[in-house]
Formats: sequence, C-alpha cells, structure tokens
Amino acid sequence: MNARPPLRVAVLGAGTVGREVVRALQAPGEGPRPFELTGVAVRDFGRAQAGGVPLALLTDAPAHLVAAPDNDVVVELLGGEEPARTFIVAALGAGRNVVTANKHVLAHHGPEVEAAARRGGSVLRFEAAVCGGIPVLGPLAHDLAANTFSRVRGIVNGTTNFILSAMADGAGTYEAVLREAQERGYAEADPSGDVEGRDAVNKLVVLARLAFGAWLDPATVPDRPPTLRGRGGPGISGVTADEVTVARALGLQVRLVADARRAPDGRVTAACLPTAVPADSPMGRTAGIDNRVELSGAPIGTVGFDGPGAGGAATSSAVLGDLLAIRRGEGSTWAGLPAADQLSAGVDPDAAIDGVRRWFVLLPGSRRGRILAGLAEATTDAPAGVAVRTEPMTLAILRKRILAAIPDTLDAPCYPVED
Amino acid sequence: MNARPPLRVAVLGAGTVGREVVRALQAPGEGPRPFELTGVAVRDFGRAQAGGVPLALLTDAPAHLVAAPDNDVVVELLGGEEPARTFIVAALGAGRNVVTANKHVLAHHGPEVEAAARRGGSVLRFEAAVCGGIPVLGPLAHDLAANTFSRVRGIVNGTTNFILSAMADGAGTYEAVLREAQERGYAEADPSGDVEGRDAVNKLVVLARLAFGAWLDPATVPDRPPTLRGRGGPGISGVTADEVTVARALGLQVRLVADARRAPDGRVTAACLPTAVPADSPMGRTAGIDNRVELSGAPIGTVGFDGPGAGGAATSSAVLGDLLAIRRGEGSTWAGLPAADQLSAGVDPDAAIDGVRRWFVLLPGSRRGRILAGLAEATTDAPAGVAVRTEPMTLAILRKRILAAIPDTLDAPCYPVED
Repeated sequence: MNARPPLRVAVLGAGTVGREVVRALQAPGEGPRPFELTGVAVRDFGRAQAGGVPLALLTDAPAHLVAAPDNDVVVELLGGEEPARTFIVAALGAGRNVVTANKHVLAHHGPEVEAAARRGGSVLRFEAAVCGGIPVLGPLAHDLAANTFSRVRGIVNGTTNFILSAMADGAGTYEAVLREAQERGYAEADPSGDVEGRDAVNKLVVLARLAFGAWLDPATVPDRPPTLRGRGGPGISGVTADEVTVARALGLQVRLVADARRAPDGRVTAACLPTAVPADSPMGRTAGIDNRVELSGAPIGTVGFDGPGAGGAATSSAVLGDLLAIRRGEGSTWAGLPAADQLSAGVDPDAAIDGVRRWFVLLPGSRRGRILAGLAEATTDAPAGVAVRTEPMTLAILRKRILAAIPDTLDAPCYPVED
Repeated sequence: MNARPPLRVAVLGAGTVGREVVRALQAPGEGPRPFELTGVAVRDFGRAQAGGVPLALLTDAPAHLVAAPDNDVVVELLGGEEPARTFIVAALGAGRNVVTANKHVLAHHGPEVEAAARRGGSVLRFEAAVCGGIPVLGPLAHDLAANTFSRVRGIVNGTTNFILSAMADGAGTYEAVLREAQERGYAEADPSGDVEGRDAVNKLVVLARLAFGAWLDPATVPDRPPTLRGRGGPGISGVTADEVTVARALGLQVRLVADARRAPDGRVTAACLPTAVPADSPMGRTAGIDNRVELSGAPIGTVGFDGPGAGGAATSSAVLGDLLAIRRGEGSTWAGLPAADQLSAGVDPDAAIDGVRRWFVLLPGSRRGRILAGLAEATTDAPAGVAVRTEPMTLAILRKRILAAIPDTLDAPCYPVED
C-alpha cells in the first residue's frame, strides 16, 4: 500500500505533545513506514533525550529544519508567538506543508498564514489547535461542509474547566484550586493565558474561521464579564468559590464558554465569558479537563463533540491524523471552504452581551427581600449575599433595577445564563 | 474555484432523506454549481412531485441511472436489501462512485461491496449509514486514523431510544409508547427492524469495520438479552415499562447499547442489548431520538459524538458532505485504513455476555428478603417484584444464586449494567 517513499517530517519542539509525536513516528509498524523523522528542534538536549528523543535527531537550529528543501512537512509544536509564526509562514511560503497546534499564531495571524499557504501551494493542518485530540475542526470543515452554521460554542480550555469544576466541588478558593491544578500539571507556571481566557478566545477564532469563513480579531472578542458598574477581571480570574457554589445550589454550573454566532444577515457576534449553564446539561456536565464543542447549523441541527481537551498523548492523535491526511494527498484543514485571507474582522464587543437575556449575579452583602421584587426568578441564601438568577432582561435593565433597589451595593460580576 | 464541470449525480429514492438531498442539489448557490442532478428514481411519481422533485428529473427505471456511463455518482437511498445491493455493486463495479445510507447492505454484504469498489476503482462513502448526520465515521476513519481502537459503543437507533426514554418518563407501556412513536413519525409502520435491534446491529457492524478492520457477521452479534433461564425477545421488544421505571429509581436508564470491543490479542466481541447505564452519564442522558457514539483507543482516550440520529434534513448533511468529499477527489470512507474484503468474521455470540459482571434484573413476584442474601447491591420495591442491581458476578453465578434462592421464580431478562 505504501509504495511511495516515506514523507519526510521535521518536528519543532519536544514538549508534552512533541515527545508523543516523536515517539509515534519512531514506533515500529507493519509494512513500509509512511513517515521518516528527519530532525527534532529543541532548546534542551538533555531534557529531550530524557523524554526519549534520540540524540542523532536533535538540533538546536529549527530554522535549518524549516529551510531544508527535502523536508515534506514541518510539525510546529513550539507554541506561542515567535519564533513559531516566522517558522510557519516561512515554511508555508517555501512550499513546505505544516502541521501545527498553535492557536495563538492562527488566531492572531490567520490571514497572513492563510495567504502564505496559498502562495506556497502548501498544506496547513491544525486539528490539534482546538480541543486536543477531539476531532472538531475536521468534522466541521469536512464532514459537515454542506452546512450553513449559525453557532459554535464550547468549553475549549481544560485548565479553566478543571479549576471551575474543583471550585464547584468545594475544593477551595480560586487560588487554592489553581495551585492544585499547577501541581497536577493541568496549569502552567504562568497560567495567565488560560485563566484570563486568551487561549479560549484563540480557539474560538479558529472555530469561527471554519464555521463562518472570516478571521475574527481576537482583541475584539469580549473576555471580561460585565459587572453591575463596569467590567470584571479577564476570563475566570475574577470568579469566586462563593459564586460557583451558590450557582450550583441554583442548579447551575459556571463554565468558561466560548460562543460565536452568525445571524441570518451575516453579522457575527462572539464572546468568551464565565457562563452559568444548567448543571444537568451536556455543557454543565463537562467536568475536569474535558472539553465539549457544539456546532449548530442547517440542515444538521446541533451536534456535540466531547473528550479529553488536553494532554500530550490525546493531542498527538490530532497531529498524527493530520500527517496521515497529508500523506493521503488531502488539502489544508480549510480545504473545501471559501478562502478567508482578508484582514481580520473585528466583532462588536458589546453585541454578544447585549443579546443576553438571563443573568446570574451574587450580590455582595445585600438583603434578600429588597431584591426579590420583580427581579429574581430564584434566590438562595449565600455566604456572601444573595444569588440572583434573573427573569429575562437585558444587562442594562438588570443593572438599573439592582442599583435602584440597593444603591449602595458593592460591584459584582454578572454572568450570562445559557441553556 | 469550481472551474471543473459539475459532478453528475443520480439519486435512487426520494423518501425523507432523498427529498432533502434533491432539494439541496437544486438550491441556487453562488458561483458555478458543484453538482448536476441528472435523475431521481422513484416508484411513486405523484408523491415525489408533491415532495418537490421536478417531473423532468423523475424516472421509474433506477437501473438506467445506475447503468448510465455519464453519471459520476449514484446516491442510493432506497434502503433495504434488494434492489439496493444489486445497484450498489453494479454501480461500483462499473466505476461509478456511490454514496449510500444503507447500513443493511453494508453490514450484510460489506466484503462484496468493498471488493466491487476496488474492482471498479470507484469511491464508496456512507457517513449517512450511522447516526444520521452526526459525523462519526469520518472522524473515526480520518481524523482519528492514527489510533488503535479498543472499543466503539453507542446509542445508534433513535426509534428505540425514543421508546425507552418515553417509558422511563412514565408515558405508558411498550405498546402504547410504540404507537406514539409511530404517530410522531419516529417509528415505521413495521417497526421490527428498529425495535428488534437489527438496525443497531447493522450500524455496529459498520462502525466495527472502520474501528477494527473486519466485517463482523451481523447474524452472530447477540441482540437478545439473557434471561434467568434462556434468552429474551430481540432488541427492546421484551423490555417492560416496569423494568425501565424501576431501573430509573435505582439511578439507571435502560438504553439499547451497541458495543464492540477488541482485546489486545485482537479478538473482537460485540453485542447489542438493552443495557442499564447511569442515568446521569452521557449515555444515560441521551434521550428521545438523539444518538451518541463513544470511541475509545490509544493515544486518544475516549471521545464522544452526539446529536440528532435521524431525520431527513440532518441525514442529508451526511450525504451532501460525502458528495463534496468526492468532488474534492477524496477516497472511500475507509480510505487510509487497511482493506477488509475477506469473508465476514463471526463473533463468539456468548463472549460479550460472558464478560459482563454487573446485572440488572426485575424479579417477577419475588419476595425481597430471600433475594438480599449475598446478591443484591441495591433493591427497591417494584410493582412487579424486586429489582436487583447485583454485586459483580457472571451471568452463570447470577442465574445459579437466584434460582437456588427462589426455585419457582418466573423467567426474567437480565440486562448488563455498564458505566
């Protein structure tokens, strides 16, 4: 079957995912080998060798691997902005195919990367950039290519979902749970990219490119929940254990939900906010480091995908699947969809929040009776005050009513309530 | 982008799915049309016209459409054994590409169909054969191609899931709920293929072909739950409302679960049985006509896919997705996987049941005290007797203990309890 010579593959980076990819590419298999690993670029040779990468393959000169004209595919697993972006664009422009898990580069430089691939006549695949090994981008762009999508939403960051799940289970404060996540390897030493929501925004931008055909500008996607008087901290950094446990008493789970919609008129709205979802819904039941993405469109309706959203082994499944697709001669992840190499399109940062009609807010130090009148659908005694899951109303009306009823209330974040 | 001439497509059958496919192929789109609909073969012209198919496209001679050398793709949506099998094999053998939703022909004639596609150098795609429009086969065979699968299981039949869900919600007896399903269009006038489990077995055989590389013989896949003294009725035909409601009181939902596993030694076991799953698990929460499939393997772990498992519109998404894949020049659904055109492999019909260690059984007319000794993990008063969710034990020990304790107990089905 594999009469063709093996595809020559260079790997940049040998972290948790890279190590697993290198191991799989070297594993003995039956029949002719589909791939030949030509080199692995790392900074720390000792650590890479300890991780099982043979010394003979190691180099500290990734640019050489990118420039080598006899490599068929460059697998970019460095992460972050630079030098990853430069390598991806250079490789694609020079006609190398690229497989990457780099959601940051895709979300922030999507049009440039897409143009480079077209210029070089090269293939770019990036299933591993969203939800680890769960097949989401492939089904969206390929199996569901006949659909017109109206919405894509998901729990796409395992770190924040682990923290929110643990807080709901009473494991402690945000700080304590974050520390536990770091000890278990679910959060990085600098967790800001995850907990402040930027990782989830980047993944939403990648999903929206495939679902809606446009690269959204990640800087315009709201990632701070509104408060009674302004905006809260980014991502889940301002979420308290009190909020999470009280929401749960109301039958809700707080989840970091990335959500992008396209209206029939083509206008796209997007947000990535702590969101209260029913505890017994598929989203509310997505716990720990698991991820879940839901795609809605016509004629399909809504389909969901769930599984481990992180981890070196699971994510290597996506990288290896993309390599096999390239070997079969398939195109880029967006092949079959219209090109989207125009400048990034900003979204109206208020539009998604303006569309929300139900809110959860834990009012600090308030008194129950004064809130109930005409506002609350459900309330409960809460350690820090009164939890409110409101009747349908806009944020403007919610703020006005609460501040009129209790002018001296402290500021508090307001989380969308979604089905 | 579509400088090539349109792909010429003939459709056999204009039922609920066919009508939607025909409608989509005729819908005006932007740019050059990717497809040209050359004909639609139906038996009832009047009904097809009422469904929106233009008279000029209609023919009552499907064999002519299959034989016409200028058709690029034949879309087979007749369902059932014949003449669908003959048309599929003839079209493939003559070099026509085929898109089909026909799980019966695939499950019962897989090796023949696969050999015909290879002989004709033609492409066969069949995403619509399993779980309607939910992308399952594509992700399994394509995005997850780097994995070694150990298990595939799912709720793959919407009709039976609607009936079991409704019975658990107290909607009435099996007969009453089946009648409601028929009135709502969720069950056919002759519902035997669904309720007796053959449809689900067929889908399991298709899933197992892609996951494990072998065509299982559907006749060897057990579809009758064991009873205390023998075997019960096929599929869900013997499941009672009492069993379903009492299981629910124990925190379980009865679901028709299609389940195939491959042991590390390569041995495949399979079964399609009413199964008690935790009510709060993703399988237990799959309600109504929804479907859910879970794939387990390495390195991915377990991923799940859920959504509408039936319906003409949702299923047309899969048919149209396959047509777009053929237009992009992609191969058959199994492209990239090893061929499996050997004779069907039978599974040991007892092996799957022998592996079960937890059982749910509703003992008719028994007395609680006599059962409890050393057998029951949980019991409850039940309308018809005593419900038992057992300690871990094999079916042989379960039968022996119960029949020793209550020699005169009436026969009763025993359902596997799975996580």
